[in-house]
Amino acid sequence: MPYDYQPKDMIFKNLGPTGLKVSVFSYGGWLTVGGTVKGDPVKDLIKTALDNGVNFFDNAEIYSNGESEKEMGRVFKELDVDRSQLVVSTKIFFGTGKSDPNQKGLSRKHIVEGMNASLKRLQLDYVDIVFAHRPDVATPMEEVVRAFNHVIEKGQAFYWGSSEWTATQIQEAIAVADRLNLIRPVVEQPQYSLLHREKFEVEYKPLFEKYGLGTTIWSPLAGGYLSGKYMNGIPEDSRFKSNPQFYESRIKELESEEGKKEQEKIRKLDAVAKRLGASNVAALALAWCAANPNVSSVILGATKPAQLEENFEALKILPKLDDKVMKEIEEIFQNKPEQLPTYGR
Amino acid sequence: MPYDYQPKDMIFKNLGPTGLKVSVFSYGGWLTVGGTVKGDPVKDLIKTALDNGVNFFDNAEIYSNGESEKEMGRVFKELDVDRSQLVVSTKIFFGTGKSDPNQKGLSRKHIVEGMNASLKRLQLDYVDIVFAHRPDVATPMEEVVRAFNHVIEKGQAFYWGSSEWTATQIQEAIAVADRLNLIRPVVEQPQYSLLHREKFEVEYKPLFEKYGLGTTIWSPLAGGYLSGKYMNGIPEDSRFKSNPQFYESRIKELESEEGKKEQEKIRKLDAVAKRLGASNVAALALAWCAANPNVSSVILGATKPAQLEENFEALKILPKLDDKVMKEIEEIFQNKPEQLPTYGR
Amino acid sequence: MPYDYQPKDMIFKNLGPTGLKVSVFSYGGWLTVGGTVKGDPVKDLIKTALDNGVNFFDNAEIYSNGESEKEMGRVFKELDVDRSQLVVSTKIFFGTGKSDPNQKGLSRKHIVEGMNASLKRLQLDYVDIVFAHRPDVATPMEEVVRAFNHVIEKGQAFYWGSSEWTATQIQEAIAVADRLNLIRPVVEQPQYSLLHREKFEVEYKPLFEKYGLGTTIWSPLAGGYLSGKYMNGIPEDSRFKSNPQFYESRIKELESEEGKKEQEKIRKLDAVAKRLGASNVAALALAWCAANPNVSSVILGATKPAQLEENFEALKILPKLDDKVMKEIEEIFQNKPEQLPTYGR
Amino acid sequence: MPYDYQPKDMIFKNLGPTGLKVSVFSYGGWLTVGGTVKGDPVKDLIKTALDNGVNFFDNAEIYSNGESEKEMGRVFKELDVDRSQLVVSTKIFFGTGKSDPNQKGLSRKHIVEGMNASLKRLQLDYVDIVFAHRPDVATPMEEVVRAFNHVIEKGQAFYWGSSEWTATQIQEAIAVADRLNLIRPVVEQPQYSLLHREKFEVEYKPLFEKYGLGTTIWSPLAGGYLSGKYMNGIPEDSRFKSNPQFYESRIKELESEEGKKEQEKIRKLDAVAKRLGASNVAALALAWCAANPNVSSVILGATKPAQLEENFEALKILPKLDDKVMKEIEEIFQNKPEQLPTYGR
Repeated sequence: MPYDYQPKDMIFKNLGPTGLKVSVFSYGGWLTVGGTVKGDPVKDLIKTALDNGVNFFDNAEIYSNGESEKEMGRVFKELDVDRSQLVVSTKIFFGTGKSDPNQKGLSRKHIVEGMNASLKRLQLDYVDIVFAHRPDVATPMEEVVRAFNHVIEKGQAFYWGSSEWTATQIQEAIAVADRLNLIRPVVEQPQYSLLHREKFEVEYKPLFEKYGLGTTIWSPLAGGYLSGKYMNGIPEDSRFKSNPQFYESRIKELESEEGKKEQEKIRKLDAVAKRLGASNVAALALAWCAANPNVSSVILGATKPAQLEENFEALKILPKLDDKVMKEIEEIFQNKPEQLPTYGR
Repeated sequence: MPYDYQPKDMIFKNLGPTGLKVSVFSYGGWLTVGGTVKGDPVKDLIKTALDNGVNFFDNAEIYSNGESEKEMGRVFKELDVDRSQLVVSTKIFFGTGKSDPNQKGLSRKHIVEGMNASLKRLQLDYVDIVFAHRPDVATPMEEVVRAFNHVIEKGQAFYWGSSEWTATQIQEAIAVADRLNLIRPVVEQPQYSLLHREKFEVEYKPLFEKYGLGTTIWSPLAGGYLSGKYMNGIPEDSRFKSNPQFYESRIKELESEEGKKEQEKIRKLDAVAKRLGASNVAALALAWCAANPNVSSVILGATKPAQLEENFEALKILPKLDDKVMKEIEEIFQNKPEQLPTYGR
Repeated sequence: MPYDYQPKDMIFKNLGPTGLKVSVFSYGGWLTVGGTVKGDPVKDLIKTALDNGVNFFDNAEIYSNGESEKEMGRVFKELDVDRSQLVVSTKIFFGTGKSDPNQKGLSRKHIVEGMNASLKRLQLDYVDIVFAHRPDVATPMEEVVRAFNHVIEKGQAFYWGSSEWTATQIQEAIAVADRLNLIRPVVEQPQYSLLHREKFEVEYKPLFEKYGLGTTIWSPLAGGYLSGKYMNGIPEDSRFKSNPQFYESRIKELESEEGKKEQEKIRKLDAVAKRLGASNVAALALAWCAANPNVSSVILGATKPAQLEENFEALKILPKLDDKVMKEIEEIFQNKPEQLPTYGR
Repeated sequence: MPYDYQPKDMIFKNLGPTGLKVSVFSYGGWLTVGGTVKGDPVKDLIKTALDNGVNFFDNAEIYSNGESEKEMGRVFKELDVDRSQLVVSTKIFFGTGKSDPNQKGLSRKHIVEGMNASLKRLQLDYVDIVFAHRPDVATPMEEVVRAFNHVIEKGQAFYWGSSEWTATQIQEAIAVADRLNLIRPVVEQPQYSLLHREKFEVEYKPLFEKYGLGTTIWSPLAGGYLSGKYMNGIPEDSRFKSNPQFYESRIKELESEEGKKEQEKIRKLDAVAKRLGASNVAALALAWCAANPNVSSVILGATKPAQLEENFEALKILPKLDDKVMKEIEEIFQNKPEQLPTYGR
């Protein structure tokens, strides 16, 4: 029996300047799927995401060296989800981690061969979105734009975008596409969170204004810091404590003056979260990302269904993030980046 | 043995600015095929249409949630009609009625996935015409134009058009296609009848003049009013009488002063029809539509072969609609819409 | 064992502004193949043509209502000729002679459906050249150009052209192709012979000069008149004598003053042919066509191998057509068309 | 078990203005593979190349009339090399050596048919690079550019280039591609060596500067002269001695005053090679080519694994080719071509 996906409680946004609708919270295979999580637990995670209305699943050829795509593809097959209800992405650039010079980058060769290999691992005829996982300064932009357009015209993807490109690179890709009458990139996958705001809010701003660029956010919890895990110091049962030598630099960071100040801020954020009715600070950190009108989707990367369920509390508090709450959060973090001067515009 | 289609008594028109020839009367699956009519009766209807020279059959993914396409496709297969003699259309926009955000609209995703699904239901490799069933203001026009062009270049359709778009939207699509050297939309499927004239005759006029836009007309009998069914009040054996609560508003409409005036007009039209040799007023209302040089085809939606045969009397009286008769009809309805001012042009 | 085609004694010309090499004499299926000639005799004719170095075989969907393509395709298969050595053409316009409005003309629908049907009859994956067999004033030129380009990009043909179009129509097609960056038509198939010169030598002249347009000539013997058959009056054993009523108008033409003058000219031409070493006047009439630098190939349509062999004598006398001989022929026919004024250019 | 290709000791360069990485030394099938070398020895040669980090293998439809492609294809299959690690090229122009006028050249017909035939012989779905093996002045450049673009869009190649074209022809192809928004040629395969420098260093210079044109070098040892074979006169066991009549002109060349001066230079080059640590002069001649920043890859054509191993010493001495060594080599050969005047630029 096919999986009965119900979008009803989810919030959907257009993926930037496209007609594609992506769930404002999505699930990504980075670090977890195919790596630390395999087999049935992957199915549990994906089922939890689907049950909460997630329709967008993010992946990349490099995630767990291809294993992440294989696991996701297997689960979609086993759950028998209607393909047209899913939005699946992958990213081409790093290959599956081999050292061969042509098994990575954004040459036409690797984009075409990488795409074929990804689809095979995913057991799909097409992804919805294909990302250039990084910029490739050693390949001319015209080759990159032509190759992604080629892949789309072949029917292997509907949209293409970038990840961790500079605004200038995205601007160049758009200009090249326009010059050649080819399909523009429509989405960037940047890091964005309450602790990393500069690039998203300042550098990308003209792209949001001029092109309505979509974004799918990775690391919205700043690598775990915004999950609240360390907001009261390093817990006794954490991997930091059991392996202090390996995590020396991160421990030092957490125990520094700056680290302690940050933990203080997160504790304050946690108080706001609780007040708004969330059980955890992560939910508020995620909701804060999702509330940004330039964010299309916030990618979650939980390793356990319970954790994912906690994340989804963000959906419930999202409507409560009014101007007053947003201002309160700004006052806690004091890190609103200064915009570039507009010289009187 | 393949069905022996004979076009000899039909009138054919070019579909707007194309070389495609469509029968001036066509048959559509809306409301009936796959819904209230299923199985052998569908075959009887389609055979009656073919026997009368109809070559154009209209459908949409949403008609009876996909069942209309399935029924039509099955009948074409069973009758073994020569594919190149048929003109088949479908429309993409509403999906098959599910609530999923990506199973409708005019995103590249839905146009491609919807087209694939329609062709599968129709058991065809291609339709002749694919319509955007409605405008999608949440998808940029460039994406829409590119996606329909993509579908045509893949060989899944020969022409594309719109249904119930504004003239401005059609104009934008044409401009985008021209800018990108892509294939223009060539046809609009609007509502048009003696009782609904404004949009067709005024708003679309510049498109007819500038682009020779084709039109395939839905509801040429104004939802049944022009069939003459209610021209002498509500018949005793009608569904209105047997279920007065459900049809309250329509009964009120018919029994209002305005309703009675309209019935008076239809009775006058009926007299003209009889004089021209038709057995029924619908035949004249249909012929009146077909006589408009900007109409490519008038879609019939009868539920019974006998009713369809009555409709086809329109073909016989069409040549009789000379200037005098057309003027007489104008005098009965008094609803010729005023054209937009041309400021001396 | 595959047929061992030897091009060595043939003269090849580029097909107008293309890299394709066509034998200056070619064989066409018009009137004969699949019609009056079927089965093994077709194989004998095609083998005779191949043995004489012919690589170009002309056909059309309408020739013998599709039977000509079927017969040619069958023979190529049976002889097992190397596909890359053959240049095969077909022409789309008239369908296979049915009255259906969409089974003819130059709509995208008929070009695509007609092409598919032709290739199926020919048992080929592609033709080398596809012609629009006539102009279609009821289809916009952009639709025609786009459709032929589409068919070429799909791999079903390498080049496209026209047959019996006006110079203005060819010019329009080239202009449309240039505007849209699509592939230009490169060849016209006109009637041309010592008795029909005006259109080729005057109307098409600017196209030869501006675009290097190629031509493949039909009726180079003016429907048999230049074969010398009637140069001494109507032979007793001819079909004209045995069925005088049916051929009344042609008999009258031949027996008129003008007809007798023409026969006189052909007798004079015959004398030149004999002097040059040919056994028959047709060989000279054919060589005269082939000598025109704007002619790419002269299509032969013999019904018997022996007749074809006689035709190929043209190859031997072609090098003898020097300025003196050409002038002599002009003096016999006195029909060199006057060029359009160039106003001092 | 698939062949375990290790790129680690090889130097890779971008193929001109593309993202493709080619090993600076590559292996080509010209003269040897499928001709004088067949069967297992081919496998030994290719394995030796792969073992030394070569990823680029060059071929052409004409090499040993198609046998070279067949042998290479067979060996890739038998070794089970990962396709995405290989860069395979072929060249279209000469066909497989038949006299048929359409089985060679750069017509759309031959480019498409030749490509299909090459891929079949290579047992591959695509090559990485397809070259026009020579210019074809009898085919318009637009047809050539369109055809190579067509082949790339079909997925049969990723890049295209030329071989032995003039700079003007390459410039025209680039201009045509730009005008039509098609894919530019990106690589030229010229002859280049210490004994043939003019065309590469002077004629192509503007193309390197304006377009970053890539080059893959054939005959880097000048047909064997730079291998040192004849630097001490003609060896007793050489083919020249055993068949003096056949090689008369080359013997005369070697024994002329000029020939003796050249041998003297090669002996001096040999001394430099030994000083740099190479066992043979060829290694230095090859390294000298590879050191040119406008060279993408130097194609080796050894007939024996041992010879190939000797060639690869070039990789080790390449880093030693500093300005001083380069100047020393210039002083030995005294043949640095004069650049075209720039009139003060």
